[in-house]
Amino acid sequence: MSFSHAHLLGIEPLAPQDITTLLDRADAYAEANRRGDKHSDSLAGLTQINMFFENSTRTQASFEIAGKRLGADVMNMAMQTSSVKKGETLIDTALTLNAMHPDLLVVRHPQSGAVNLLAEKVNCAVLNAGDGRHEHPTQALLDALTIRRAKGRLHRLTVAICGDIAHSRVARSNILLLGKMESRLRLVGPPTLMPAGAADWGVEVYDDMAEGLKDADVVMMLRLQRERMDGGFIPSEREYYHRYGLDPAKLALAKPDAIVMHPGPMNRGVEIDGTLADDINRSVIQEQVEMGVAVRMAAMDLLAQNRRQGLG
Amino acid sequence: MSFSHAHLLGIEPLAPQDITTLLDRADAYAEANRRGDKHSDSLAGLTQINMFFENSTRTQASFEIAGKRLGADVMNMAMQTSSVKKGETLIDTALTLNAMHPDLLVVRHPQSGAVNLLAEKVNCAVLNAGDGRHEHPTQALLDALTIRRAKGRLHRLTVAICGDIAHSRVARSNILLLGKMESRLRLVGPPTLMPAGAADWGVEVYDDMAEGLKDADVVMMLRLQRERMDGGFIPSEREYYHRYGLDPAKLALAKPDAIVMHPGPMNRGVEIDGTLADDINRSVIQEQVEMGVAVRMAAMDLLAQNRRQGLG
Amino acid sequence: MSFSHAHLLGIEPLAPQDITTLLDRADAYAEANRRGDKHSDSLAGLTQINMFFENSTRTQASFEIAGKRLGADVMNMAMQTSSVKKGETLIDTALTLNAMHPDLLVVRHPQSGAVNLLAEKVNCAVLNAGDGRHEHPTQALLDALTIRRAKGRLHRLTVAICGDIAHSRVARSNILLLGKMESRLRLVGPPTLMPAGAADWGVEVYDDMAEGLKDADVVMMLRLQRERMDGGFIPSEREYYHRYGLDPAKLALAKPDAIVMHPGPMNRGVEIDGTLADDINRSVIQEQVEMGVAVRMAAMDLLAQNRRQGLG
Repeated sequence: MSFSHAHLLGIEPLAPQDITTLLDRADAYAEANRRGDKHSDSLAGLTQINMFFENSTRTQASFEIAGKRLGADVMNMAMQTSSVKKGETLIDTALTLNAMHPDLLVVRHPQSGAVNLLAEKVNCAVLNAGDGRHEHPTQALLDALTIRRAKGRLHRLTVAICGDIAHSRVARSNILLLGKMESRLRLVGPPTLMPAGAADWGVEVYDDMAEGLKDADVVMMLRLQRERMDGGFIPSEREYYHRYGLDPAKLALAKPDAIVMHPGPMNRGVEIDGTLADDINRSVIQEQVEMGVAVRMAAMDLLAQNRRQGLG
Repeated sequence: MSFSHAHLLGIEPLAPQDITTLLDRADAYAEANRRGDKHSDSLAGLTQINMFFENSTRTQASFEIAGKRLGADVMNMAMQTSSVKKGETLIDTALTLNAMHPDLLVVRHPQSGAVNLLAEKVNCAVLNAGDGRHEHPTQALLDALTIRRAKGRLHRLTVAICGDIAHSRVARSNILLLGKMESRLRLVGPPTLMPAGAADWGVEVYDDMAEGLKDADVVMMLRLQRERMDGGFIPSEREYYHRYGLDPAKLALAKPDAIVMHPGPMNRGVEIDGTLADDINRSVIQEQVEMGVAVRMAAMDLLAQNRRQGLG
Repeated sequence: MSFSHAHLLGIEPLAPQDITTLLDRADAYAEANRRGDKHSDSLAGLTQINMFFENSTRTQASFEIAGKRLGADVMNMAMQTSSVKKGETLIDTALTLNAMHPDLLVVRHPQSGAVNLLAEKVNCAVLNAGDGRHEHPTQALLDALTIRRAKGRLHRLTVAICGDIAHSRVARSNILLLGKMESRLRLVGPPTLMPAGAADWGVEVYDDMAEGLKDADVVMMLRLQRERMDGGFIPSEREYYHRYGLDPAKLALAKPDAIVMHPGPMNRGVEIDGTLADDINRSVIQEQVEMGVAVRMAAMDLLAQNRRQGLG
C-alpha cells in the first residue's frame, strides 16, 4: 500500500503507484457492490461533509452513497442557499465547518484552485469534487478504473479525448492520469475548444475526428459545456454533431474493440449518437458511473486510514 | 404471505390478497412505531434513493423516515435542480442512478406513466410515489389501512370520495383499491372536476353532496388542486366551499359514525371546515399520515424481501 | 442531574442549575469530539426532524451533525419549498410531522413565539433553533460554554454585547442566560439598534464603545442584520465600523485577557476587523462553532432521556 497523501486535491500530485493503490482498492469495492455486499463500517464514527458550491446530481450522489455505504455520518451542505448569501467568505465557511470536526470534506467549487486553498485551512482530509477548469480527480480515477477493467491495463493504450477540451477539468485530470500511466493521449476537437497550450503537453492534437480516432483503444467523448462559454464561440449543435459527434461511422475508424466513454450528463445527438451511447457492446458509460461510487469509497477509505495513522 | 411483486407501481396490478398482506405488515409497523420500537435492521446494507421530480414535503418525508427506520442507506435527489437542467433525459438519469446499485428507487414524477417506464429500465425495486394523474399507490394503501383500523374491515363499506376527482391520482388509486376490496364507491363533485369516463367505472357519481354523503361510512375529501387546472375552469373558493366543502351540516347526512379523511395538505375553509378537520371524534386525518410511514415501511420491507429471494 | 424540561424553547424558563447541567454534559461531548470519539448510540432508534422555515447553514448543520453523531435517524425538511406553498398552516405542518412519531423536533421560524405555539401541539421534544427576535437558546448555551472554558466560570464576569441588539435573538437569549448566572451585562451600540426597554433589563446600556468595553472580560460582537431592518434606519458600513466595529484599538480598552466572540456569519470590516477575528490569542469564534455541536448533542441527549423517563 503506497498511498500516503492527506488529501485528494488532484491527479497532479499522485505517483503512478498511488494511482494503482487507489484503483486496486476501488476494484475490490466495485466487486463487493456488485455482489450486494455494499455496506461496511470502514468510516463508522467519522463525519463526512459534502460542500457543493455548484450543483451536481451525479457527483454529489456518488460521494453521498459512497460515504453512507462505508458507515460515515454524511451531511450535504447546499452552499448556494447558505451563509454565502450573508456575505461570508469561502474560508470563513470552511473554518466554520472545520470547527465541527469533520474527518472528510468533499468540495466542488466554480473557481480553479479554491479547493487547494481550502485544504490549507482545515485539519481534515479534503477531496476535490471538481474546481473550475482545474481538476476533477475522482472522475479521472473512475475513468481509469473503467478502462483498466475493459482493457486489462492502463499503459500502451491509445486514448482519444474528444470535444470541448478547453472547458473541461475532466479532460485535464484524465490527461494527467493517463500520461502518468504511459498511455498515448490524443486530444480531438475544434481549435476554438482546444486549450491554448495543448500542443506542449506531450499529447497529439487533432481537429479532425477521422485522424484522431484512427486505431484508438478508447474514445472518450466530453460534454459540450455551453454554460461555461461566456461570450466565446458557441457552435451550432447540428454542425457540431456533424463534425465532432461520435456516430457509428466515426467509431469504425477506431480499433474494432474500442470502448466508448462519456462522463455524463450526455447531450444525445450533440456529442454522441444516442443508440451508440446505449450499445452495451461498445459503450461503458453506465460502468463509469458504477466505478465512480467504488473509486470514491476507495479514496475516502484510504484517506481516513492515513488520518488514523497520522500519515499524509 | 402472498405479495410477490418486483415493484409497487400502482394498485391496478395488485390482487386483493396482495393488499391484505401489505396492510397486515403495515399494521404491525404502525403498532411498533406507536410503542416507540421504531428502528430495525430490515433494510440494513441496502440503498434507497428518493427521486422526486415534483416537490412533496410529506410524501418524501414519509418515505425517508420509513427507510431510515428500517436501517437503509437513504439518499434524496432533488431532481428539479439536477442534471435534468443540463438536458439529461429521465431515462439517462434513471440509468445513472441504477448504475450506483440502489435496491429501492422511490419516484415521483409529473407525467403519468413515467414511473412504469422507468421501472422497465432499472434492476432495482421501484415504488411509485405519485405519477401525474395516474396512480399514488402508497396513499391508497395508507387510506385503506386507516379505514380498516377505524371500521374493522374494507368490504361492504360506503365510501364517498369528494371534490376534485379529475386531477387526483389519489382518487384513482383509491377507487381501484376499494373496488378490489368490494367496497361501494361514490364520487361526489362538480361535473367539471369529474373525470370523463367516471360513469363507466362501476361507481356511483353525484354532483350533490347531500345525495352523495347519505349513509356513507367514510367521507374522503380531496384537495382542490388549482395548480393542475391549467387554463380550465377554476371555481371560486367561496362558492366551492358552499357547495362542496365538508362542514358539520353536510357530514350529518352520513352515518353517525362516519369518519372524515383528507390526504393533505388541506385548504381549510375550501374543501373542509377547519374545526371538523381537527375533531378527533370524526377526523382521522392525522392517523392517515401516521399510517403512511407504516405502509411505506411495509412496502419497502416486502419488496426488499422479494429481491433477496429472487422473486417478483 | 437537574434538567427536567420537556422542551428547550428558550433560556427564560431555565434555572441556573439546568444551565449548569446542560453545560457540563456539553463539555463532556466537546472533549469526546476533540479526541475523535464522536459517535455514540445515545439517540439510536429515535427520529429527529429539523424544520427550518428560515435558511441557516451553520445552525442546521450543527443540529444535523449532533443528531447523527448520537445515532438518531435525522431528517431535514426544507420548509420554504414545501407544503407551506400549498397553503398549509404552520400548525398543520407540525401536526403532520408529529403524526410520523418524531422524538425530537428542531425548529427555526421567522416569527417570535411560533416555536412555543408549536410545542403545545405536538407530543415530542421541541428545540428552538431561533424564532424571530425572541430566543435562540442553543446559541446562548454555546456562548456560555465557550466563556466558561476560557474564563473558568460564568459569574462575576463583565460581558459587553455590542452592535445590533435590537434585531438579535442571540442577544436576548445571552442576556437572559448571563443574567441568571450572575454576570454583569453591558449592551453597547447605537441607540437606533438598542431595543426599547433595554434600560429596564438590569443591564448597563452604552452607545460609546470606549465606555462599554472598559475592563470587559468578554466582548461579544453581533452581526449587523440589515436583512431584518425593514424600512428602518440602516447605517452605512463605513460609519458603523468606525464607531462600533471591533478593532485592536477598541479592544485595548477591555481587560488584557478579554476574549472576542461573534455568533457568525461575520461581516468582516463591518462589525469586526478581519485580522482580529482570526487572532487565536483573542478570538474564540471558531470554538463557539465547535461548542455549538457539543451543546446540541447535550440538549438532545438530556431531552431524550427525560422523554424515556416520562419527565418534563
